[in-house]
Amino acid sequence: MKLESIDLKKIRIEDQFWSKHVNLVKNTIIPYQWDAMNDRIKDAEPSRCLENFKIAAGLSKGEFYGAVFQDTDIAKWLEAVGFVLAANKDEELEKTADEVIDLIGKAQQEDGYLNTYFTIKEPKRRWKDLCEGHELYTAGHMMEAAVAYYLGTGKTKFLDIMKKNADLICETFGQEEGKVKGYPGHQEVEIGLIKLYHVTGERKYLDMAKYFIDIRGVGENYFLKEMKSDDYHLIFPEFANYDPSYSQSHMPVREQESAEGHAVRAVYMYTAMAELAYEYQDEELMKACKNLWNNIVEKRMYITGGIGSSGILERFTVDYDLPNDYCYCESCASIGLAMFALRMANITKEAQYIDVLERALYNTVLAGVALDGKSFFYVNPLEVRPETCKDRTSKEHVKPIRQKWFGVACCPPNIARTLASLGQYIYGKSENTLYINLFISNQAKIELGEDEIEVRIDSDFPAKNHFKIAFSKIAKEIKVGIRIPGYGEEYTGLINGKSVAYTVEKGYAVFMVGEDTEIEISFKAPAKYVGTNPKVSTNNGKVALVRGPQVYCLEEVDNGDGLAGIYVDTKTLPKEIQSEKLGGSIFLELQGKRIDEEDWPKNQLYAAREITYKDVTIKAVPYSYWNNRGIGEMTVWMNNQI
Amino acid sequence: MKLESIDLKKIRIEDQFWSKHVNLVKNTIIPYQWDAMNDRIKDAEPSRCLENFKIAAGLSKGEFYGAVFQDTDIAKWLEAVGFVLAANKDEELEKTADEVIDLIGKAQQEDGYLNTYFTIKEPKRRWKDLCEGHELYTAGHMMEAAVAYYLGTGKTKFLDIMKKNADLICETFGQEEGKVKGYPGHQEVEIGLIKLYHVTGERKYLDMAKYFIDIRGVGENYFLKEMKSDDYHLIFPEFANYDPSYSQSHMPVREQESAEGHAVRAVYMYTAMAELAYEYQDEELMKACKNLWNNIVEKRMYITGGIGSSGILERFTVDYDLPNDYCYCESCASIGLAMFALRMANITKEAQYIDVLERALYNTVLAGVALDGKSFFYVNPLEVRPETCKDRTSKEHVKPIRQKWFGVACCPPNIARTLASLGQYIYGKSENTLYINLFISNQAKIELGEDEIEVRIDSDFPAKNHFKIAFSKIAKEIKVGIRIPGYGEEYTGLINGKSVAYTVEKGYAVFMVGEDTEIEISFKAPAKYVGTNPKVSTNNGKVALVRGPQVYCLEEVDNGDGLAGIYVDTKTLPKEIQSEKLGGSIFLELQGKRIDEEDWPKNQLYAAREITYKDVTIKAVPYSYWNNRGIGEMTVWMNNQI
Repeated sequence: MKLESIDLKKIRIEDQFWSKHVNLVKNTIIPYQWDAMNDRIKDAEPSRCLENFKIAAGLSKGEFYGAVFQDTDIAKWLEAVGFVLAANKDEELEKTADEVIDLIGKAQQEDGYLNTYFTIKEPKRRWKDLCEGHELYTAGHMMEAAVAYYLGTGKTKFLDIMKKNADLICETFGQEEGKVKGYPGHQEVEIGLIKLYHVTGERKYLDMAKYFIDIRGVGENYFLKEMKSDDYHLIFPEFANYDPSYSQSHMPVREQESAEGHAVRAVYMYTAMAELAYEYQDEELMKACKNLWNNIVEKRMYITGGIGSSGILERFTVDYDLPNDYCYCESCASIGLAMFALRMANITKEAQYIDVLERALYNTVLAGVALDGKSFFYVNPLEVRPETCKDRTSKEHVKPIRQKWFGVACCPPNIARTLASLGQYIYGKSENTLYINLFISNQAKIELGEDEIEVRIDSDFPAKNHFKIAFSKIAKEIKVGIRIPGYGEEYTGLINGKSVAYTVEKGYAVFMVGEDTEIEISFKAPAKYVGTNPKVSTNNGKVALVRGPQVYCLEEVDNGDGLAGIYVDTKTLPKEIQSEKLGGSIFLELQGKRIDEEDWPKNQLYAAREITYKDVTIKAVPYSYWNNRGIGEMTVWMNNQI
Repeated sequence: MKLESIDLKKIRIEDQFWSKHVNLVKNTIIPYQWDAMNDRIKDAEPSRCLENFKIAAGLSKGEFYGAVFQDTDIAKWLEAVGFVLAANKDEELEKTADEVIDLIGKAQQEDGYLNTYFTIKEPKRRWKDLCEGHELYTAGHMMEAAVAYYLGTGKTKFLDIMKKNADLICETFGQEEGKVKGYPGHQEVEIGLIKLYHVTGERKYLDMAKYFIDIRGVGENYFLKEMKSDDYHLIFPEFANYDPSYSQSHMPVREQESAEGHAVRAVYMYTAMAELAYEYQDEELMKACKNLWNNIVEKRMYITGGIGSSGILERFTVDYDLPNDYCYCESCASIGLAMFALRMANITKEAQYIDVLERALYNTVLAGVALDGKSFFYVNPLEVRPETCKDRTSKEHVKPIRQKWFGVACCPPNIARTLASLGQYIYGKSENTLYINLFISNQAKIELGEDEIEVRIDSDFPAKNHFKIAFSKIAKEIKVGIRIPGYGEEYTGLINGKSVAYTVEKGYAVFMVGEDTEIEISFKAPAKYVGTNPKVSTNNGKVALVRGPQVYCLEEVDNGDGLAGIYVDTKTLPKEIQSEKLGGSIFLELQGKRIDEEDWPKNQLYAAREITYKDVTIKAVPYSYWNNRGIGEMTVWMNNQI
């Protein structure tokens, strides 16, 4: 059984909220990243990604430069290009991409091997450092890119390159004698192999992905074994005294009940696990997915959809440990969480997964890129005091301002490919049911059973909680499930202007729809103060402000510094103000009080004296857009005036 | 001009509060550390400190083991032994120490060089890695030890060894042609040289200390220059891309206005600067000391006397950045702060310095060692949730339980030498004035001008704010300044039972005292809630509880877990309860409320719902004794119920 998916070539997004972000990919991020990978961005860390391919192809001379997984920058870029070309013809871009693919082809070895680091720098250590080498991780991204490029352009060259590479992987790894019984140090190839199977129908790719998942963490840890070999040498200093839970290889995946280790590795693996559970109807694997999902969303996730509480090693820590100022919350981890959520929603048809997916997309993923598309966050804190994010201190990983590029540049192209493939998150489907997950204006042609129906969504969301869905080319009546978001109140649906009753199935309002039907949905989602489970000690006495899927924050530019001294009056309803700033966002005006700093003796650090307060009006803006108006303090969690 | 000091041989401390700690040094810590240095402590990290000396002396074969400054463990141990032997004869201990000193003598090279790391491992790199090599740091501790041992026993062998070593340093470093124009990567030798000058009168040692201070941070940074040499190799990986402010070498010391970099390096340097400023009557240097002092106590110090906010590199960060849970607050840094404070007090005769010194001693320094003397804190957080202090995460440097020993074991022996020399902090003096700084019961003979007077303090402090001081052998009337602590209220003094008026000079109550005078002092210092300058964002809305010099904290063992959910009612006075636990501490009973965790839906992380509270009685204990009753949560800063 194969999970149903949506053909991105047949979706056109034109949305008042999302288009400005999605269009950035084609107009700004892709050209910008192209410059970055060609080392043409001033004052940014060099990439040399393309130069590495030229050296590996024998077209240039020099040393390998960059991280061991530097190749993935071009992979994610090509994947984004594939998605963009699915939506819009662009001959120049396609020509550039074709040239890059030619280069990749030249850098591929005779037997299908493809990895510039090992080809240039350590040819004898192929597959010998699965823990740190990232060969399978890189291959996975290349496979995803090849599939996207094939689906976007119909061209098979890149796909053929990656099939040859996948064939080599299938010949190299496996249970059979003489094969390597290892698994990737950074999960990702599983997703790539599954996608490759989906477009080629080659079952061995799916089986290969399952093998990697099945043997992970079983018996003696493969990485610790690898590290005992005589010719082993560390690539990453922080991998000394390796802790297998870092890469989720501390126990068989089916037995894992809590999200451990490096957050991106974790959610990429869970994504593959979910898909494999479905493909093989593996209930035990599905149970593990649900346990891991629940552990994240009930105990280890920020309200912004961020995950990974530790600044050291970008990892999960323990239940309810959600520090706001020195967390990691890598952009890529929230992207991975959205990928995992999409699979879980597609399999279970439960809307709860989309609530989390939407939270991640509208907040941490969007926050990862500036409104102009030219700078990026890697780490996404929920509280920032810029001067404390000093180099070589506990908070040096937190950058108080988006960066032009990164030495390890996983996040910017990951955001690009996510925005460029936004269409995949809008709809879900089963044989005769179409699910509307996200309320984004678009026109789509969707295969449902044996028919191709046409759908058009016109949405004012999230500014207004109102959208219309028009259906046509409906040969026989279909079932449509429209997500009732967790924050939705007074949900009403009209069919062709008439109020109708609907049933609710797993969080979806379900309607029967025939030809030329228009459904109009309205609900209320007023701005609300939200609290946290008291076990999250950092948030005791604090509230966050959410409006629909958007989490709000306070910024210094609106409220002055000393945001931690503000106390909001949660009894007074926030007032909505339509702004022209921050992409036409709705700002929220709050009432409260704040510490009167002037009243404290200037040179005294501690004193037995009362704090005085003054009444204030406070302005909150969407978290996704913080730091678009210069550097300054920011906080999501505000003191609750009680 | 030489700063007056107190002869530790002539002080006997017998104090209801301190004796239990001071006696630990002789009875437990010194024997325990002796075992540790001989690698006889089960489950503790090995030391091999003595083995290194045997190898360097040619008495044993093997590799150097441990940190580059491993020798300082024995130095600090010998210094503590010197202090202990000053107070009490102990033939067996003295015999052991003499044997160690013989061994040190054998490990010393012909020319006076003494350092087991460089002697065994890198003989060709003597003085070539001042940045990381810690040769001068180690020499400084050895000098301090030699001086303490000489003063405690009258024996000169160790002193002679270190004079020879100091002579070599004087021949090696300096302005003259052919000499090394460098300065120590970790300051400490300056203190050692000054002490050596004090007991030998050898002026060149003082001048050498001044040279190191004078050239520090002047011109091209010496360490960056050193790192450019061809045979340079890193000893500490974290020293790559070296930041000179880490070692306070980023600018000339006289221009420094804020406390930067590694906290221990900083305060050791400030200690030497203060003493040199006095010796050379260098007003510019004194001004720098005052600026740096003010920066620390007005902007960068924890209420416990802890310093060093960053868990990475054990360093200062920026003004008002005082996170409670992931700070460093190294025990050694508070010891260094006390050393700096003592010099400043002795020079300026201002009581304000003693307030800080007392805060550091009664809180962070004491917290560094368990009540049984067998385990130690290196890092001293003000808030701990043990399960979040997980290895390989942002808080891995915070140990929620005292450790038996450390690979880098600077703190335990530093605490030992501080407790063993507690007498130096009790009194200050100038030509005709005796200052009573700390209210600790003792009998002392003190040279004042040309006479030796006798003083006896009988004190119930800090349990009760009451003590008597009896003077005898007063040939001619003397001035006595008794510190009025910052927290003291309704201060009264009786002379021979009669109420007297006193003048106040720089925070001291000044009395004129003749033969057979008894002064009786009483004041009030009720437990009080204290707030922080609002610029310290982490403490907004929070209060700490102090009683005299002692900072209090909440522990899980008394109050259950979830301490961050407790709100204290600061309008109700804390109730004192004399306990038999924690060395007979006064516990404080507080009123307040706490979050009712049961009322929150178990599997929900975020929700738009009210938090409910329940009234509670809360118990607080002295911070210095936290974690003496098993592992659990702890917090100094409590939410203020407003």
